[in-house]
Amino acid sequence: MAEPKPASDLTRRVLAGDRVALARAISLIENETPQAAEVEDVCFRKSGRALRLGITGPPGAGKSTLVMRIAQEYRRRGETVAIVAVDPTSPFTGGALLGDRVRMAELAGDDGVFIRSMATRGSMGGLAVHTAQACDVLDAAGFARVVVETVGVGQSELEVAQTADSTAVVLVPESGDGVQAMKAGLMEIGDLFVINKSDRDGADRAAFSIRSALELRAPGSAWSPPVLQTVATEGRGVAEVVEAFEEHLEHMRVHGGFERRRRRRFEQRLDDLLRAHLWQEFRAQVPAAEWAAALDRLESRRATPNGTAAVLIERFGANRPGAARSSG
Amino acid sequence: MAEPKPASDLTRRVLAGDRVALARAISLIENETPQAAEVEDVCFRKSGRALRLGITGPPGAGKSTLVMRIAQEYRRRGETVAIVAVDPTSPFTGGALLGDRVRMAELAGDDGVFIRSMATRGSMGGLAVHTAQACDVLDAAGFARVVVETVGVGQSELEVAQTADSTAVVLVPESGDGVQAMKAGLMEIGDLFVINKSDRDGADRAAFSIRSALELRAPGSAWSPPVLQTVATEGRGVAEVVEAFEEHLEHMRVHGGFERRRRRRFEQRLDDLLRAHLWQEFRAQVPAAEWAAALDRLESRRATPNGTAAVLIERFGANRPGAARSSG
Repeated sequence: MAEPKPASDLTRRVLAGDRVALARAISLIENETPQAAEVEDVCFRKSGRALRLGITGPPGAGKSTLVMRIAQEYRRRGETVAIVAVDPTSPFTGGALLGDRVRMAELAGDDGVFIRSMATRGSMGGLAVHTAQACDVLDAAGFARVVVETVGVGQSELEVAQTADSTAVVLVPESGDGVQAMKAGLMEIGDLFVINKSDRDGADRAAFSIRSALELRAPGSAWSPPVLQTVATEGRGVAEVVEAFEEHLEHMRVHGGFERRRRRRFEQRLDDLLRAHLWQEFRAQVPAAEWAAALDRLESRRATPNGTAAVLIERFGANRPGAARSSG
Repeated sequence: MAEPKPASDLTRRVLAGDRVALARAISLIENETPQAAEVEDVCFRKSGRALRLGITGPPGAGKSTLVMRIAQEYRRRGETVAIVAVDPTSPFTGGALLGDRVRMAELAGDDGVFIRSMATRGSMGGLAVHTAQACDVLDAAGFARVVVETVGVGQSELEVAQTADSTAVVLVPESGDGVQAMKAGLMEIGDLFVINKSDRDGADRAAFSIRSALELRAPGSAWSPPVLQTVATEGRGVAEVVEAFEEHLEHMRVHGGFERRRRRRFEQRLDDLLRAHLWQEFRAQVPAAEWAAALDRLESRRATPNGTAAVLIERFGANRPGAARSSG
């Protein structure tokens, strides 16, 4: 493995917490430009101190407002915070209403806060890889907490949430009906649950439904996820959410879940990167005409997807028992 | 490419529409057992007649009830229907309330209807591949319509929805608030939009929000997605949803979008299969000890994810310019 090279100017500025450099570095990551690798690698080596918090939940649950309030609460506690919004429905990613923009502007005027949205598409292992890389950058830049906001329910969004050290699932009172059924997805990934917009009817019932659903989770874990109620627009209950995050992180530190979770995260990340590289290398070997011909055969049902995949791998993949290796 | 082999007994029974055989075949697909390939291949070659409908939307939108009602409406029209539920929050996948079970039992007693849930995990290219394979089986078995229910918002769920010829996005009146922001995701994939639970307040406003958001979609498509209102529990508006699906399918037949969409679907499917095969072959080459050592180096920050991926591909992948091929 190569020794780390001396850092570029951009990377040095990133490590110094320069905001323009941070924004630029994350754009490089997002666009998968060749220069991204250096900043990724240097930041990865310098990472590991920040605690990463995930905020996920269905659209309309008020996640972005809650994230802003959580950031404010951490600032009150004297901690620096970076926010990464990978939620296509998040105001941070463009759809902000006026009130949100005002609150975002308040946060953005504070040097201890950095806000960044991430695009939801990408070829290099996709969103989860980019998110992890952006978190490394913000971690290496010295932010004490990195909050990742994703829209939950979907598989890849759950994967993004799983890049966090601690994850809050945010719901609304009306989610109560669906909670029992929803346990298959969100119930499994929440370290804490937040019923936001709890000034609406049904908040207590929703909290009860979630607690009931949580009792069905596999026992064995010493951590019992709290179910909290907030009205994020007014800041109500937000301090308790921050407290619950910190308690969960402390609990994992004491009980050892921390390292296990981070190792699983590294494994997922390596897996994602390898899949993407293997695919890119393979796809570059297949001439456009061959690819089009393969699709023609599928359309006419002269060939099957399984058969076509096997033939293409036989011809253009060399990763088989009989193939020579380019190096040992 | 090999000629199709004579079909096994299972495959023959699948093609004859035998329900036990259908259930068994889909289980083979789900479990990625070696016998699955034969039934997949034969059914793929016999597929192409069924029209595939996607139903997606957030949890709690009442998608499953709507799907049941749509199935009943098709039965009234004399068409056979198969339902594939890949939504972890769907009653079909286990979380059914009593009323749902009663309605499902009604449907299940009808030979012209087949209902099947699919698990949400899988290594072979994941859910989208399995769903497409299951649809082939149901298509080859002679069902006129195959309805795939997924929970929308997430990336992989959107991919599943995109395996359909026509997709309905199902929302509730309360979704109105989030619709403008949500356009980044669901707005792009809907061929029709359904506000279910339209007896609740805000249905008209939600429909208006969706229509406004739809006006921002890229022009050029001759199809303008209708926004319909339903109360699926009472069957209200369901005939109109079926009519809208049929109109959209007819529109694509006339304007040629049909073949373009199916080709894109084949391409995505081949892509998914190839990625999965490449990864499996590669992963099988990496000894467990090497893999663990790589994770150790990441944990201690002695190596970076990019560097580790490059080293592993160099050592265990042979798909590089200098490598010999196992066959021409």
